[in-house]
Amino acid sequence: MKCTILTVGTEILFGSITNTNAVFLSRELQTIGVDVMYHMTVGDNPHRLKEMLAYAYHDCDLVITTGGLGPTQDDLTKEMIAEYFGEKIIEFPEQLEILKTRMWNRNRPITPNNLKQARFPEHAEILNNPNGTAPGFWLQKDGKMIASLPGPPHEMEPMFLNELRPRLLAFDNKVLYYRNIRTNGIGESQLENDIMDLVDGQTDPTLATYASKFETTLRIASKRETREEAEAAVAEMLDKVKERIGKYIYSEDGEDLSFVVFKMLKERGLTLSAAESCTGGLFAKTMTDISGSSAVFDRSLVTYMERAKMAELGVKKETLDKYTAVSEKTAQEMAEGLREASQSDVCISVTGYAGPGGGTEEDPVGTFYIGLWFEGRCKAFRFQTRRASRERTREYACVQMFKLIYDVLMGRNEFFAESL
Amino acid sequence: MKCTILTVGTEILFGSITNTNAVFLSRELQTIGVDVMYHMTVGDNPHRLKEMLAYAYHDCDLVITTGGLGPTQDDLTKEMIAEYFGEKIIEFPEQLEILKTRMWNRNRPITPNNLKQARFPEHAEILNNPNGTAPGFWLQKDGKMIASLPGPPHEMEPMFLNELRPRLLAFDNKVLYYRNIRTNGIGESQLENDIMDLVDGQTDPTLATYASKFETTLRIASKRETREEAEAAVAEMLDKVKERIGKYIYSEDGEDLSFVVFKMLKERGLTLSAAESCTGGLFAKTMTDISGSSAVFDRSLVTYMERAKMAELGVKKETLDKYTAVSEKTAQEMAEGLREASQSDVCISVTGYAGPGGGTEEDPVGTFYIGLWFEGRCKAFRFQTRRASRERTREYACVQMFKLIYDVLMGRNEFFAESL
Repeated sequence: MKCTILTVGTEILFGSITNTNAVFLSRELQTIGVDVMYHMTVGDNPHRLKEMLAYAYHDCDLVITTGGLGPTQDDLTKEMIAEYFGEKIIEFPEQLEILKTRMWNRNRPITPNNLKQARFPEHAEILNNPNGTAPGFWLQKDGKMIASLPGPPHEMEPMFLNELRPRLLAFDNKVLYYRNIRTNGIGESQLENDIMDLVDGQTDPTLATYASKFETTLRIASKRETREEAEAAVAEMLDKVKERIGKYIYSEDGEDLSFVVFKMLKERGLTLSAAESCTGGLFAKTMTDISGSSAVFDRSLVTYMERAKMAELGVKKETLDKYTAVSEKTAQEMAEGLREASQSDVCISVTGYAGPGGGTEEDPVGTFYIGLWFEGRCKAFRFQTRRASRERTREYACVQMFKLIYDVLMGRNEFFAESL
Repeated sequence: MKCTILTVGTEILFGSITNTNAVFLSRELQTIGVDVMYHMTVGDNPHRLKEMLAYAYHDCDLVITTGGLGPTQDDLTKEMIAEYFGEKIIEFPEQLEILKTRMWNRNRPITPNNLKQARFPEHAEILNNPNGTAPGFWLQKDGKMIASLPGPPHEMEPMFLNELRPRLLAFDNKVLYYRNIRTNGIGESQLENDIMDLVDGQTDPTLATYASKFETTLRIASKRETREEAEAAVAEMLDKVKERIGKYIYSEDGEDLSFVVFKMLKERGLTLSAAESCTGGLFAKTMTDISGSSAVFDRSLVTYMERAKMAELGVKKETLDKYTAVSEKTAQEMAEGLREASQSDVCISVTGYAGPGGGTEEDPVGTFYIGLWFEGRCKAFRFQTRRASRERTREYACVQMFKLIYDVLMGRNEFFAESL
């Protein structure tokens, strides 16, 4: 089955919001073997929406729309789909009742606009929306399939999973299986070069490299009659890949580095704390994105002002005066002070110039120091990014913090190179 | 000028990465008066890429591509554009020299793949890329314009701003001016209802509402001969809008609530600290996303484990035992302890069940408490989200923290309703 994801909404074309719906749907569709051929976005314009539908079907049999199902005047997706398929729009009495009850429960008045949300193309099947006022719908006609979902992700996502996915699975024949092999420390070009002969002339499994933030992911995918066959084909290829680039691989299951670190800490019963300056809570936020992180993550002391570094971490005033807050010495004292305060098994600190202001000649914007306390040792390391934005520098610092912990837990870091 | 943003990359169709390039370009193009008509994404497939180019030009005069300029085999954007325009691909000697120098400086070998990056359509003008190995290019032919930019945002964004934007500005005639009016506490449907008569039959300025995370933005836009005329038209409309929904507006310039809070604190010379549990550093991260936030932001104590809440914030063991860590009492003690530790003028705390695990019958997943210390008073408030994901609950808690500080600084919160 070949699919176009058609996003409707001028706010996307204005850049006011990011099209995360296309990301979610693409991932989910891939796992059930639906090939996503195109993403298309069109504004709240009836003519162009209909035209794009026609284009989408020229080599796809399924179109999934998101957005434009709301109560406002420029929400026209339903009307245009009906026109394209030559369907009348009629009121669905059951949907009107659901809508009335919902508004009643929320103590909100029903505006004339709202009533629109109980009307659908005559042959549509309703896709229920327990999380909002806009139900979606499914329509199959003239050999074409369409599913129309609401725009807000917290309404769209459960609707896809609970209402649409089961319908699509009924059409499926082959099974797709894939693994995302995540690497750190090797560029995309180098990685592809190293496995070039495995990629060439290979139709199944397929190999594809993706450069994402500061690292490269390799996806190995196979589509076979059964899941067992697909899994075996992927496993065989993975073995070959590991012979070439094994040392760069930190996850064979698409896990984030932070999650891999979390699992390692949990397995070993270790606790982790952080002392953050330039990352400003991003490390803690990344760690606590993980459900269950409270099993290993103790605390992060985000000490943004110098007085906070001194009071919370015991960084010495002389150190700040002599070496500044962005220095190897400060990073080290932050990690040591954090250990003192938290007694956590792994204590990591970071201080740097995220920019755009600040920086010195020796340590320009983009420079940061990471301190690490582990098993009685404490060391600090210097890092530098070039021409990076504030956001990118902070993200890079965060990745390097996880990388350092990962390497230390693997016992293969220069951390252990010499005694203190 | 009408434009299609054409993103090239199978990894986008797989959902492996989010198309943030389209967001950036859409915003930037809008501010210089280029109408973005479509976003389209196609995989690394030569046939479909060429076909989509043809479709894009049926009602646009400009196409901007991102992605597919890299060194690997499936990077084919350049080749397909050349084919579409009937251009030969030739080596640009100057680009070859730049490439060689760059690889030499980085101490990396030049793979045969890399050489591809010095070859371009014969009539192309190079768009320089100081941040990567893939230059972009600009081509004007047969009344059509195309700009081809690399995929990585940190390469694409400066290339757009420094190389492409000046070329586009040379074509512009009318001036677009707009303001994003940000509101909190009013739904999109209600907001549109309140200003319906202003929207109806209005061609310039235009009004459009966008529901984004937990709030609604209203964009007022005008396109006139001069910037002055456009500004005046927008200002006149804004006055009318404020008569209707003024009390919900917190920014007339599209600023985030966190930035508005930051500005208010800075103007008054107040410092801010946070004590975070369920948000796990997200509040601090949001605050320190703001360049210059160190002027007001002192620290955040991300106390994830109970032992951290006791040690860092002086939360009493009896309180945790009797009321649990997610309670009004704990939130209040966190804010009080934070004030004690930091002496900051505004001290805010949060503790809750972000899920998916945890929660009690009275306080299910999605419940959180926010404590606030200000001018000698300390109070805690209870909040609850329904059926929200971990991420959404954390984001919602963070928004409510900023909202509470905003309201308190505006002097209009129930915070002041009664004395302690």
